[in-house]
Amino acid sequence: MNIKKSDFSEWYNTITKDAQLCDLRYGIKGFVVFMPWAVMSMNRMYAMYEQAVESRGHVPALFPALIPEEYFTREGEHVKGFIPEVFWVTHAGDTKLEERYAMRPTSETAMYTMYALWIHGVKDLPLKIYQRCQVWRHETKATKPFIRSREFHWIEAHDCFATREQAMAQVREDMEMAEEVIHGHFCVPFLFFKRPQWDKFAGAEDTYAADTLMPDGRALQLPSTHMLGQNFSKAFGIKYTDDKGKEEYVWQTCYGPAISRIYAAVIATHGDDKGLVLPVRLAPLQVVIVPIIKEETREKVMQRCKEVANAIGCCFFVKIDDSDNTPGFKYNQWEMKGVPLRIEIGMRDVEADSVVVVRRDTGEKIKVKTSEVDAKLGEIAGSIDKTLRARADKWFSDKLSFAEDMDELGKKLELHGFVRVPFCTDGMEAEKCADIVKDKVQANIRGSLFGSDAKPEGKKCISCGNKATIYLYAAKQY
Amino acid sequence: MNIKKSDFSEWYNTITKDAQLCDLRYGIKGFVVFMPWAVMSMNRMYAMYEQAVESRGHVPALFPALIPEEYFTREGEHVKGFIPEVFWVTHAGDTKLEERYAMRPTSETAMYTMYALWIHGVKDLPLKIYQRCQVWRHETKATKPFIRSREFHWIEAHDCFATREQAMAQVREDMEMAEEVIHGHFCVPFLFFKRPQWDKFAGAEDTYAADTLMPDGRALQLPSTHMLGQNFSKAFGIKYTDDKGKEEYVWQTCYGPAISRIYAAVIATHGDDKGLVLPVRLAPLQVVIVPIIKEETREKVMQRCKEVANAIGCCFFVKIDDSDNTPGFKYNQWEMKGVPLRIEIGMRDVEADSVVVVRRDTGEKIKVKTSEVDAKLGEIAGSIDKTLRARADKWFSDKLSFAEDMDELGKKLELHGFVRVPFCTDGMEAEKCADIVKDKVQANIRGSLFGSDAKPEGKKCISCGNKATIYLYAAKQY
Repeated sequence: MNIKKSDFSEWYNTITKDAQLCDLRYGIKGFVVFMPWAVMSMNRMYAMYEQAVESRGHVPALFPALIPEEYFTREGEHVKGFIPEVFWVTHAGDTKLEERYAMRPTSETAMYTMYALWIHGVKDLPLKIYQRCQVWRHETKATKPFIRSREFHWIEAHDCFATREQAMAQVREDMEMAEEVIHGHFCVPFLFFKRPQWDKFAGAEDTYAADTLMPDGRALQLPSTHMLGQNFSKAFGIKYTDDKGKEEYVWQTCYGPAISRIYAAVIATHGDDKGLVLPVRLAPLQVVIVPIIKEETREKVMQRCKEVANAIGCCFFVKIDDSDNTPGFKYNQWEMKGVPLRIEIGMRDVEADSVVVVRRDTGEKIKVKTSEVDAKLGEIAGSIDKTLRARADKWFSDKLSFAEDMDELGKKLELHGFVRVPFCTDGMEAEKCADIVKDKVQANIRGSLFGSDAKPEGKKCISCGNKATIYLYAAKQY
Repeated sequence: MNIKKSDFSEWYNTITKDAQLCDLRYGIKGFVVFMPWAVMSMNRMYAMYEQAVESRGHVPALFPALIPEEYFTREGEHVKGFIPEVFWVTHAGDTKLEERYAMRPTSETAMYTMYALWIHGVKDLPLKIYQRCQVWRHETKATKPFIRSREFHWIEAHDCFATREQAMAQVREDMEMAEEVIHGHFCVPFLFFKRPQWDKFAGAEDTYAADTLMPDGRALQLPSTHMLGQNFSKAFGIKYTDDKGKEEYVWQTCYGPAISRIYAAVIATHGDDKGLVLPVRLAPLQVVIVPIIKEETREKVMQRCKEVANAIGCCFFVKIDDSDNTPGFKYNQWEMKGVPLRIEIGMRDVEADSVVVVRRDTGEKIKVKTSEVDAKLGEIAGSIDKTLRARADKWFSDKLSFAEDMDELGKKLELHGFVRVPFCTDGMEAEKCADIVKDKVQANIRGSLFGSDAKPEGKKCISCGNKATIYLYAAKQY
């Protein structure tokens, strides 16, 4: 790769092509082919996320990909938010359909129509259902593979509760899952923001979204979880009879971790100037063994490679690369693909009864006794994930800053990702203040930091100059 | 359930509803909601099938759900076969698209367009890629949940080889996978037929399909594997340069196990008059513990239930049903849902230090010492899958028969499933003979039994009376 990561946009495009993560040459704009190396990691990501979702009481279901137009129109904000992005099915075979169908851009309207039929009493609550599926949105913004495309792969969980408190507890549980999976397993840091009212999910009362940062300091939204309140339950008639025989509307939440986009964050967070760097758990191939072969010692070296592969095959996905390419070519190739561990074995290593282990994350070369290779490799692998997470966390925490007026914000944005600023409010009436920020420093207001109770005392809104009542965070965004 | 399985069609409709496998009340005809109890089993089925596919060298990819119309038109037979069934996307937001897009009814044309870009030399072969996805077909026949619907869930594997022989070896490997997974793991018997030329997959040279039988003796097609020859590689320009520097078209196969339909076969094959019966590996819940409670002994009985649940929780999905329903209600409910094992524990069992284990497949009640419950349960569970497979195999083999003229065929079809008959040929020219069979006895010609070399000697075609050259099998079908 001739591109440095500091030139992030070019680097990202190059790596998705050179590491064969996707192919952009498919005949529909914004639709990419997800290639095996990426899909193998995404499948692991799905498995870990589904495990988190199911261990918290969700069960899987599958709802149709097509949604009757009429379902959409029942919730006013929702229909306004999504209709402009919908792909419409109008014909089947030679026949024009009586009603057109939307390819799901998200499944609230499909699922809640059924929920109204399924929920009767308190016994039916909580209802916690998720599905693993694709959604389609006719994005008008520029698409970028995995980050923003017109077809993406996600999990959506849709839950119903008897009370607002239970729904809010679910929102916090959704955040906890993001921490466990995205930060814990995938080693990607983020912050949860409560989005301002003008930027919430269409139909929600409140939206809480996890934002990470790309290497160029721009924010990328990872999963969001939405407090839907009773907006949808009233529109779709999802009611239950309480203990006193009274009919009540349920309280709802929904949660949408987009696996394809989180994969983009994994690429961007960990990758370096040599290519992809993958957490051990996400690597399709975890250890590549490269034999250093001279013709006269071929047999002995290959024999040792096989012994080592056998010794570690129980715990790792291992491949011996015995292709005709030079060792140097192989090193580059597997570094590009992000294989976490490389083992080099030549005749000298055979004689010394040792192997050389090379870490992808640090480049460190470690001499290991052949007899200890399995134990030692487990140790190093554990250390790789820790190193990736610590490195990412460190970088991320340096990208937080503060500003108290527009000039300072502009300057801080050059060096940092998120900049905290005093703001008049996060209600609808402040949207014009956010527009001013966008206009003057090309940044978006991402919301208030969830869980923080810092309040501006005696400060002024950076846009309108009125009394500031809240701290909000600004960032350039994807 | 008041419906006997002998009234199969009614039984099937009732069980899919009462065991909460799907909901037909979604607002688009032929699109059903797959409910959690079904999806949990289908996810296990996916995992086992994907394991089989990957262990044979396939890697996963993900191709777009939308296919440009132009891709379809490149292979003449294929476009004729599928275009009448396609759902068309014509608009995005308010904009009419320049070209309309098909929702994939199958992915040959999407994948092979890319394969032409990916394959260059012998080194790139074999290429073996699969995807797990949904496909959409605007069926004109009556739909039936899981069996035939307008959206279904499958795996499709698409492979390229340098030679015809390698491609044929893949076809046999595809059959082997069906045997391993569908018969081995899901306990569903079937036969592989080579379809007659008039009934092959659109664009294929030959189609080999696994047919099972429904309880009413009608055939249901499970996965088919297709020898595509070079039809698609020529249409899509998928070429490789051989060792001598000569350009050759690849040889292709494709394979489509439809998980949702195979699930229908699992329901139909094993279910009985009390409801669903599931192989242990496919059951979302494998053991239900029903406490037999009197108020004065509640604590002791529940304590024992928990001890037993802990003892077997390592190896089984277990639930203690401590709801307020009566034991009889619980028995019926979990039998309807096909839970393979029930454990009953009352005060008398606590005192005797034993539990009663009830097998869903046979109804047998087995007294087991509490201290031996985990070992014993493993044993019984293994025996359940064997029993289900043996029972299904026995029933299936009794459904094979022979006939030598149309009258005899008509009679045999009343009692049996597949009836072998002498036929003039399985080439296109015999389609009219097949039409006569359909007309006279309402049966379809399913093809010749793969691997059988029995030849009719001195027999006549049951339709035209000309010399018979081949044995074909007839069956009523879904």
